[in-house]
Amino acid sequence: MRILGIFIFLILFTFSVANEDFNTHVVDKPLFDYFENNEPHMKRTLHLECTSWKFAVEANNLRPWKIIPQECADYVRKYITGGAYNMEIDRVSREAGAFALSMKLGEDGKDVWIFDVDETLLSNVPYYSQHGYGSEVSNSVEFDKWVEKGVARAIVSSLKLYQDVKSLGFKVFLLTERSERHRIVTVENLMNAGFQYWDKLILRGSEDHGKSATIYKSEKRNEMVQEGLRIAGNSGDQWSDLLGSSASIRYFKLPNLMYYIP
Amino acid sequence: MRILGIFIFLILFTFSVANEDFNTHVVDKPLFDYFENNEPHMKRTLHLECTSWKFAVEANNLRPWKIIPQECADYVRKYITGGAYNMEIDRVSREAGAFALSMKLGEDGKDVWIFDVDETLLSNVPYYSQHGYGSEVSNSVEFDKWVEKGVARAIVSSLKLYQDVKSLGFKVFLLTERSERHRIVTVENLMNAGFQYWDKLILRGSEDHGKSATIYKSEKRNEMVQEGLRIAGNSGDQWSDLLGSSASIRYFKLPNLMYYIP
Repeated sequence: MRILGIFIFLILFTFSVANEDFNTHVVDKPLFDYFENNEPHMKRTLHLECTSWKFAVEANNLRPWKIIPQECADYVRKYITGGAYNMEIDRVSREAGAFALSMKLGEDGKDVWIFDVDETLLSNVPYYSQHGYGSEVSNSVEFDKWVEKGVARAIVSSLKLYQDVKSLGFKVFLLTERSERHRIVTVENLMNAGFQYWDKLILRGSEDHGKSATIYKSEKRNEMVQEGLRIAGNSGDQWSDLLGSSASIRYFKLPNLMYYIP
Repeated sequence: MRILGIFIFLILFTFSVANEDFNTHVVDKPLFDYFENNEPHMKRTLHLECTSWKFAVEANNLRPWKIIPQECADYVRKYITGGAYNMEIDRVSREAGAFALSMKLGEDGKDVWIFDVDETLLSNVPYYSQHGYGSEVSNSVEFDKWVEKGVARAIVSSLKLYQDVKSLGFKVFLLTERSERHRIVTVENLMNAGFQYWDKLILRGSEDHGKSATIYKSEKRNEMVQEGLRIAGNSGDQWSDLLGSSASIRYFKLPNLMYYIP
């Protein structure tokens, strides 16, 4: 039975390899042999391939991935610059705001809302616009130079959510992938962008080196829970901001098609 | 300080209510006062509102919801009938297949793949096409009549995945919201649609009455784990199929804009 299974598997595997066109996470060949063909239905097919790639990314079906498919670079650019990206962020922020409003907070001031920083509070789109919106292999040296400029702008609807949850009485914890060595520039950037009075800004310390974001952020949330805090909401653009241990009551996944953090 | 917070909150709340146009989960008023306006940029704005609603649904940001926004009924119809829906399902199935292939199975035959039934293995689109693709309030009596016909077709790429994971040696468990009283018709329907040799079909029994799908399915998965089974993969169209306790190593969220199950 097992041998028969292996035999059937090999046949299926041969077919699946023969038919593979959009399976690889790092797409280093065209999705379509007819990519240069500009006929409308081919454009439509490419568009659908990119929207289904988007769905797979945002619903956490596709992981890990290192770079957006080259064929979807133009799709992602239009998505970000054409209004769809901002509208999705607005939608999520309003859902988060409605949830925050619906929460009954304790009298002890121990209800927490966690925010990620990059692509959640601050936008690095100006940087990525110069690097193919995620279609170029990421370059941490270049990105660090951008971070050190400290000029990232606020994501407007996140700033509104931030102010709303503060006003409602939540403690606000910022939990970021950025390094401790970027603390000062990050604080300055956040304040210049309009973010104020957070309760804690947690950056990656030397002890967090080599940990995945999911592990690092879970550990930091575990510490919050051990301190008796209640994590009500968590806003982040990566699933690694949101999943793992000591998860929030509700999480809010902001869109991000430009990069993936495990 | 607290009184000031409440005061600021009341001001913000007043503004947020005044500006509310797409916040309600059950949308019983038009998203736009200018909905009848057919100018291209208004159509575009409506399209973007619907795509951002889709994002919010599929990334589990919007919940619970009872019915699709009336203004997005045409968007959802085109999405389902125009190929995008099928392409997304294909995409997820191929990701799932790649993961299944990458798994090293134990020698003990205790690696399990769970499949939901409706909108995962079997398609009820013919039923929903007669009921506004989710824009009508759901009617369980009518839906049961459809189920009892037993004519739902296989979702093609799910059938392929089903056969692939079987061939690889996974045990296949079907875990559905359908009731025990629909066992016979469900078995017949599944077999007529090409699904065969599952290891267990779990339906809602009388003891599961009143439980949310998340709780009911978590309990059934807990039982599997208690029996020493290892849940490798889980395919479902609802987040309530996938989240909760005894979760699978990887889950695969199929798209579903037609209805929401808590």
